[in-house]
Amino acid sequence: MHTLPNEQSDQSVVRGSTASPLAPEWLQVPSPDLNVLDASVWSRTSTRNDSGELTIGGVTATELIEQYGSPCYVIDETDARARASEIHSVFHQAFADIGAEIELHYASKALLTVEVAKWMVGAGLGLDVASLGELEVGLAAGVTPASIGMHGNNKTDATLRRAVEVGVGTIIIDSLQEVARLEAIATELGKVQPVLVRINSGIHASTHDFLATSHEDQKFGLTFDAAREAIAAIRRASSLEFTGLHSHIGSGIFEPAGFGAAAAKLMEFRAELLAHGPVPEVNLGGGFGVAYVPSDEAPSLAELARGIANEVARVCAETNSDLPRFVFEPGRSVIAPSGTTLYRVGTTKTVQVTAASGEVAPRCYVSVDGGMGDNLRPAIYGAEYTVRMANRAPDAPAQLVRVVGSHCESGDVVIHHDYLPQDVAPGDIVAVPVTGAYCFSMSSNYNYTPRPAMVAVSDGTSRLLVRRVEIEDLLSYDAAWTPSEGRDS
Amino acid sequence: MHTLPNEQSDQSVVRGSTASPLAPEWLQVPSPDLNVLDASVWSRTSTRNDSGELTIGGVTATELIEQYGSPCYVIDETDARARASEIHSVFHQAFADIGAEIELHYASKALLTVEVAKWMVGAGLGLDVASLGELEVGLAAGVTPASIGMHGNNKTDATLRRAVEVGVGTIIIDSLQEVARLEAIATELGKVQPVLVRINSGIHASTHDFLATSHEDQKFGLTFDAAREAIAAIRRASSLEFTGLHSHIGSGIFEPAGFGAAAAKLMEFRAELLAHGPVPEVNLGGGFGVAYVPSDEAPSLAELARGIANEVARVCAETNSDLPRFVFEPGRSVIAPSGTTLYRVGTTKTVQVTAASGEVAPRCYVSVDGGMGDNLRPAIYGAEYTVRMANRAPDAPAQLVRVVGSHCESGDVVIHHDYLPQDVAPGDIVAVPVTGAYCFSMSSNYNYTPRPAMVAVSDGTSRLLVRRVEIEDLLSYDAAWTPSEGRDS
Repeated sequence: MHTLPNEQSDQSVVRGSTASPLAPEWLQVPSPDLNVLDASVWSRTSTRNDSGELTIGGVTATELIEQYGSPCYVIDETDARARASEIHSVFHQAFADIGAEIELHYASKALLTVEVAKWMVGAGLGLDVASLGELEVGLAAGVTPASIGMHGNNKTDATLRRAVEVGVGTIIIDSLQEVARLEAIATELGKVQPVLVRINSGIHASTHDFLATSHEDQKFGLTFDAAREAIAAIRRASSLEFTGLHSHIGSGIFEPAGFGAAAAKLMEFRAELLAHGPVPEVNLGGGFGVAYVPSDEAPSLAELARGIANEVARVCAETNSDLPRFVFEPGRSVIAPSGTTLYRVGTTKTVQVTAASGEVAPRCYVSVDGGMGDNLRPAIYGAEYTVRMANRAPDAPAQLVRVVGSHCESGDVVIHHDYLPQDVAPGDIVAVPVTGAYCFSMSSNYNYTPRPAMVAVSDGTSRLLVRRVEIEDLLSYDAAWTPSEGRDS
Repeated sequence: MHTLPNEQSDQSVVRGSTASPLAPEWLQVPSPDLNVLDASVWSRTSTRNDSGELTIGGVTATELIEQYGSPCYVIDETDARARASEIHSVFHQAFADIGAEIELHYASKALLTVEVAKWMVGAGLGLDVASLGELEVGLAAGVTPASIGMHGNNKTDATLRRAVEVGVGTIIIDSLQEVARLEAIATELGKVQPVLVRINSGIHASTHDFLATSHEDQKFGLTFDAAREAIAAIRRASSLEFTGLHSHIGSGIFEPAGFGAAAAKLMEFRAELLAHGPVPEVNLGGGFGVAYVPSDEAPSLAELARGIANEVARVCAETNSDLPRFVFEPGRSVIAPSGTTLYRVGTTKTVQVTAASGEVAPRCYVSVDGGMGDNLRPAIYGAEYTVRMANRAPDAPAQLVRVVGSHCESGDVVIHHDYLPQDVAPGDIVAVPVTGAYCFSMSSNYNYTPRPAMVAVSDGTSRLLVRRVEIEDLLSYDAAWTPSEGRDS
């Protein structure tokens, strides 16, 4: 066991107790066992082996770091495939129960690699892409273009052309200007392109509630007035086929009520549009939340599916509407819980901090070899995650920690608030679960830092999904660099 | 001239007036000429040619976009070199006036390419690096290792080894644990490594004020107690040479008082340390602010240099101290104003928004072909920038705009608040100045988006600094991708 002392060892954590006046309320847990892997945040094959080491897919954290470098993005393939199948099954069941057809498109912006796209399609999901790059990855994965929906508030002509050319199933129109542009491209290519119109419905939902206004102060979608004009133009265009309405109300949503509110607005508008032609599809977007820390009480996918299905059934009954085909675009809820990031601890030090209560308490800063470059969410959204020891299961008492990265930026935080054993020390490996979504996607090379490899694990084996981006890869884009320089200087 | 109407053209901007209840106070400018390039935010060779087009370094925005693609990071080489020379000169003058030696190290995390490093060194600056990658770029640029200072709260052994091996001038120790680690590495390599110790001084400064506490709740530096222990250990170590103290108090600072407060704490500590040996250097870090929008009243580099020199002179006089050698680490203040990002407008639409006053007013959303991928600062810090038309100088009246990117994220904003002419339309090129720092550095490929090329312009010519990172470059890291897939599907 490591015995390196923490710097400034005047810390005074009470042994056996995790009470810290610096901990937020949701972290005021009496005496948690820091070696337990809470099933609400750890992927299904995450467990500790007989030595107390974290293993995912049967591979230990230490093996992964040694083979692929540190940090390392680990995707639990079994978990990801199971989640994709599960969300497909529970949504199909819930909507069959209300007599409605349904499709799910995986929101690829959450995490997209060629293999991940294949897993999603293999589980029966279509693909939601929001850029030419995402479309190209989907095509490289062999995804049937007809099962791809293409988003974007500002699609370029090149993007639209490529999408129409390959036969993307749906293009979600996001502005009045896009109608004419897409019509011209489809006409030129001799195609009839099915399109949805994205509505800025004025419904904005977050975890437990939603807000309803006439429309939102945001870049996405068309107001109902603009949508009327757009839909009339689409219906006039021989190269476009109007297939329905789209709405996306937010992210991190735990409660189905916001979807009901959006469905109500869309179904009312749909009733008006039906007077002039068919409106077969209503796409209510994504935004399903997941638990990032054990105290987040996220609904199960089945509960969420049932809750949303019941909301739309109620709305359709209240408005005497027939049931359109529904589409949803889950991303985070499918892939976030399947990802875990492994880091190597490099430095620890403790700072005495004055809490809001006036009490002075220690906070141990645990520096790891990654940070905002591989997970921007804590810095950009103040997102909270949990952290656990991965290379061993010590019985040392808990201390409040802040896990920080190695970037030259004070906001470079990985974990704002959690506990780790007091003997956490340089050389240890720590693991942060629920990093499957929006970590790799939003990664940067700030401070000229390599991007970690992304690895799939299952059944005791691991393999690369995306290789590590090394310093020399970054330098290779520099017009004034030649490979012989640098190391020879 | 483009005549495409804005979507939802019920906007009611008063011609000739820019008053909008949605504009923040600093933007309540009576009737600005939107074609003027305010010298406080535009690089020195930025101007409009006879056709009204923006030119930088004598090259038009249109030519740049056509040659290098859109978006495009443009660095005004003349401006960057001049700023680097100017900051060197004004700081040397101001500190000569108080009888002190001084060195400046360019904080490479702000923007680092091989050529940019050469410019900085050519102007007499050393290099401040905060990672192995930044060190490698500096070495590739031929920077003399002795003029490099190496930072990092969590330097790996590999990083320390490389730094000692090549003979980096200073390593800034950031934890007690690092002392023993570095001592062992330097001993093994048979070197004597000069080191500073970074102090968590408790001074935190922002634009106009500073806060003084016993120490900060942050990851950087050692408290005075820990520093005492570290310095004693360094002085005992035959492979380390203690050369002084380091402090960094914040960023975006306009007022010199915070530097005086930090200097006071460091000089007091230095007096104590002098009893046991020399402390030749005091490094007060960087953090000098720049104007991002014309209403930011940033001091000139000369005013800032004089202000800081006077503060430290006062502190030294008050404490009867001799003057150590001072070092500063400017980054943003050198390079931010030399950079301009060019974007192509793709979509415009207007949303009616209820202001805090209850008044309803239009906001035109102008979507461009970049966004948070190439400039994260508005999304992560709520940073404000200004935007102007670049391909023409229209005389249309102003309208309040929000310039947004193309990413699938509602927080993807480039310009929260500014005015553009009412006839801004798809196809136009717009320019955002003061993007030289922390834009390229923090860039991501979110939504599988290419990274724009970075181009240097001067004397009517342009050349690549860093080439565009294409979708295929991103795919090339994917283990399941083969180049023959995708385009052939």
